[in-house]
Amino acid sequence: MKILKSKILKGGFLNSGNEKEKTNPKILEIKKIVLEKIKPKKNEAEEMKNFLNDLLRVSKIIAVDAEPLIVGSMGRGTWLSGDNDIDLFLLFPKGISREELEEKGLKYGKKITEELSGKYMIKYAEHPYVRAEIKKRNVDIVPCYKIKKGERIISAVDRSPLHLKYVLSKLDPSLRDEVRILKQFFKGIGVYGSDLKNLGISGYACELLVIKYGKFENVIEAISKMKPGTVIDIERYWKSVKKVKEKFKNEVLILIDPVDKNRNTTASLSSENFIKIVSKTKEFLENPSIDFFFKKKKELTNEELKKIKSRGTKFIGILFEKPDIINDILYPQVRKASERLSKLLESHDFRLIRKCEFVNDESNKVYLIFELEFWTAPKIEKKIGPPIFVIKNSNDFLSKYKDAEFGPYVENNCWVIEKERRFDNASSLLKNFLSKDENELIQEGIPSYIAKSIQKEFRIIEHKEFWKTVKNDKELSSFLKEKYFEKIKI
Amino acid sequence: MKILKSKILKGGFLNSGNEKEKTNPKILEIKKIVLEKIKPKKNEAEEMKNFLNDLLRVSKIIAVDAEPLIVGSMGRGTWLSGDNDIDLFLLFPKGISREELEEKGLKYGKKITEELSGKYMIKYAEHPYVRAEIKKRNVDIVPCYKIKKGERIISAVDRSPLHLKYVLSKLDPSLRDEVRILKQFFKGIGVYGSDLKNLGISGYACELLVIKYGKFENVIEAISKMKPGTVIDIERYWKSVKKVKEKFKNEVLILIDPVDKNRNTTASLSSENFIKIVSKTKEFLENPSIDFFFKKKKELTNEELKKIKSRGTKFIGILFEKPDIINDILYPQVRKASERLSKLLESHDFRLIRKCEFVNDESNKVYLIFELEFWTAPKIEKKIGPPIFVIKNSNDFLSKYKDAEFGPYVENNCWVIEKERRFDNASSLLKNFLSKDENELIQEGIPSYIAKSIQKEFRIIEHKEFWKTVKNDKELSSFLKEKYFEKIKI
Repeated sequence: MKILKSKILKGGFLNSGNEKEKTNPKILEIKKIVLEKIKPKKNEAEEMKNFLNDLLRVSKIIAVDAEPLIVGSMGRGTWLSGDNDIDLFLLFPKGISREELEEKGLKYGKKITEELSGKYMIKYAEHPYVRAEIKKRNVDIVPCYKIKKGERIISAVDRSPLHLKYVLSKLDPSLRDEVRILKQFFKGIGVYGSDLKNLGISGYACELLVIKYGKFENVIEAISKMKPGTVIDIERYWKSVKKVKEKFKNEVLILIDPVDKNRNTTASLSSENFIKIVSKTKEFLENPSIDFFFKKKKELTNEELKKIKSRGTKFIGILFEKPDIINDILYPQVRKASERLSKLLESHDFRLIRKCEFVNDESNKVYLIFELEFWTAPKIEKKIGPPIFVIKNSNDFLSKYKDAEFGPYVENNCWVIEKERRFDNASSLLKNFLSKDENELIQEGIPSYIAKSIQKEFRIIEHKEFWKTVKNDKELSSFLKEKYFEKIKI
Repeated sequence: MKILKSKILKGGFLNSGNEKEKTNPKILEIKKIVLEKIKPKKNEAEEMKNFLNDLLRVSKIIAVDAEPLIVGSMGRGTWLSGDNDIDLFLLFPKGISREELEEKGLKYGKKITEELSGKYMIKYAEHPYVRAEIKKRNVDIVPCYKIKKGERIISAVDRSPLHLKYVLSKLDPSLRDEVRILKQFFKGIGVYGSDLKNLGISGYACELLVIKYGKFENVIEAISKMKPGTVIDIERYWKSVKKVKEKFKNEVLILIDPVDKNRNTTASLSSENFIKIVSKTKEFLENPSIDFFFKKKKELTNEELKKIKSRGTKFIGILFEKPDIINDILYPQVRKASERLSKLLESHDFRLIRKCEFVNDESNKVYLIFELEFWTAPKIEKKIGPPIFVIKNSNDFLSKYKDAEFGPYVENNCWVIEKERRFDNASSLLKNFLSKDENELIQEGIPSYIAKSIQKEFRIIEHKEFWKTVKNDKELSSFLKEKYFEKIKI
């Protein structure tokens, strides 16, 4: 295990400070203030406890052949004040069929909700489950198989009870607040949540980090020294770092799940966000501030607007209504659409500098933003054909372009023609493309919900109109501020 | 030989007419007119004959241990009226040393010139020789080794006497005028001469084509059906076309030298010019005209100027004094310089559509012309760095660009920064580059004579000034007219 440990402690980018220091008193003070704000107060905790007890009592009566269990941060005692989402799992024995599991899960879920005078709806993840609203709290009632550590999971959620068991057995209750503070830190810097919107760090991963490193400041210290490909294997399942890295290739942080050695708990952390957590922890250690935990969104200043415009590039935004779907479907679709359109632009010789996507949950708008090196192209387009020695292809090329505006001529032994360009500016290209009907858009690689929304309505904003929109949309403005002006500490 | 023959006769691009027709009477008429203009008149031929006789008589007396011989088109009887360049070769036995050959060659050359009251200078090719001006005629007096067919040549010019011998033995004197007409045709379309300026067809190759195909119109017919990689092997040295093509890979026309099976007589024909001869012969056969032989240079019309400008591209010209060197050195250097500058432009993100070079022999100016898709670039330049997983390279990149204007940030698992671009327009980039001193220019890949000339003075012309220059320089204008508006017949 020496290998692993030394790997973890090695310095990150451009940093080699290795000595351990005593906790900065300022950090202790900040932790106190943060905890004050995020730890459930006594009465809030009491109310929650009572609610959960009621829930479990009723569940035990109704779900006769299952074992009810509160999982998630509620169960693990690391929830934050204001958290209102409860995961009630019903653990069934491995013997029953999938159909029975799903059927009973729904039946019991409905009954439990009714018994507690709640309302419910059916939600679908890997299998259907009941989402209940009971006494203004959201309760997900999810059936799963009861498995033991080391056994293969049957349904996707079967690991949750094992996670609960592991954390309860390993996390000293005195460290629960450290988990809370760590979660709030990740929230503050925008990387909390391992869902497909946030591509960040889950609550469970926070707990594991505290189990591994101890107090909040120790976790922060450890992260600040990490480099891409860091391996953390708390239970020391793996004998060699090399093997781990081979298995989890190109994953920036490999935090082996203590209940499943073949699972990386931080698999969904994006490289961008990994660099962010390393950078932000460094920054925090150098200059601790409460602002890291409760980040106020700031818009672009006039100075910054000027600087961004002085890049001499062209911004084009595509706006459309946000489809009414869950984030785990929305965000991948938004990213894919953005990718497809950037390919379209580049295939028509409009070179991109950057692209980004922004979803404004308040105004329900999606923005796809492209920053172009050029947004107009010459009227003429050069097409390089086959080598003159390849007769068949030459004939095809020459007959295809026999009416070309200029040429054919020969350059470097290849045929060349020049023809009129259909789209000599980027926005007319985008407009033409996006005006296709829904099915065509889907065939062209735009994901379904995005295609549907775009077909209903879209707008292209560029030049002055783009910057006017940025000025009017504070969320968008602060999104761009972060994208263009946040400095990485390295 | 059936294989070779069928290869040659196979249709060219987009053409498959195989039937032989009788010569178009219009072509016969044109040939007559052309010959009238280019065939030396009786008195011109008489004068030349007398001059050559004098020359040979004196040479025999002076070059006691060598055999004087008139080679080239004068010797082969295919010279054109007005030709004034005479090649007098002195053939020495193979036994003598290179030093002796050179020494005696110069000594005899000088004596011959003096005896005939001429002036001389020493010129250098592979070895030194005498260039004499005798009675207003240019006579190159060149020593060489007398070798037999099949023997390896010792000096570069040893083949010439064998060429003479071959042509005299194979070319029916009645076909000499056909050679003259063919040469004039190639002159007219601008592909006569296998030197490094013209990259076209030599006089000797013209003779071989007439030996192979007969009359002018038959040669034209054969060429019009050629495709790149055509093999002509008059003496049937090679057993397989495949082997020939392997040996002369990427050569567009392979005309095996009857005195050396391993030499392609048309090796220096460029692919551009090959396509031109195929296209022009087609055009001529479809629409015969005297204009092919005596091409009047035509300038760009206002209509064409408008069309060229409507391409929406940007033209930049670099002008400098033509260095006083022979074409075989000048043209490769001009092309290399143009190539180097186009690489410079592209490496700074200014994309080229076309480039061309033009030497105006009247005004002694060289023009390097670049047609750009864009000639300005944004202020900001994106640099994509190494993958974040490669720690060493990442550190290097990050420390190198730690003061970048924007970034670092992570995109597709790689580091990215954006820095201010030093040159945001093409002409300032070129100006900066060309203002280096001579040695720097040479180190940067600009050939020596070009570097020297540029260092003395250069001008960059763009936009209106470029087009003004084109209007004022008729030669340049007709050069561009041909480049942009000549249609290839395929």
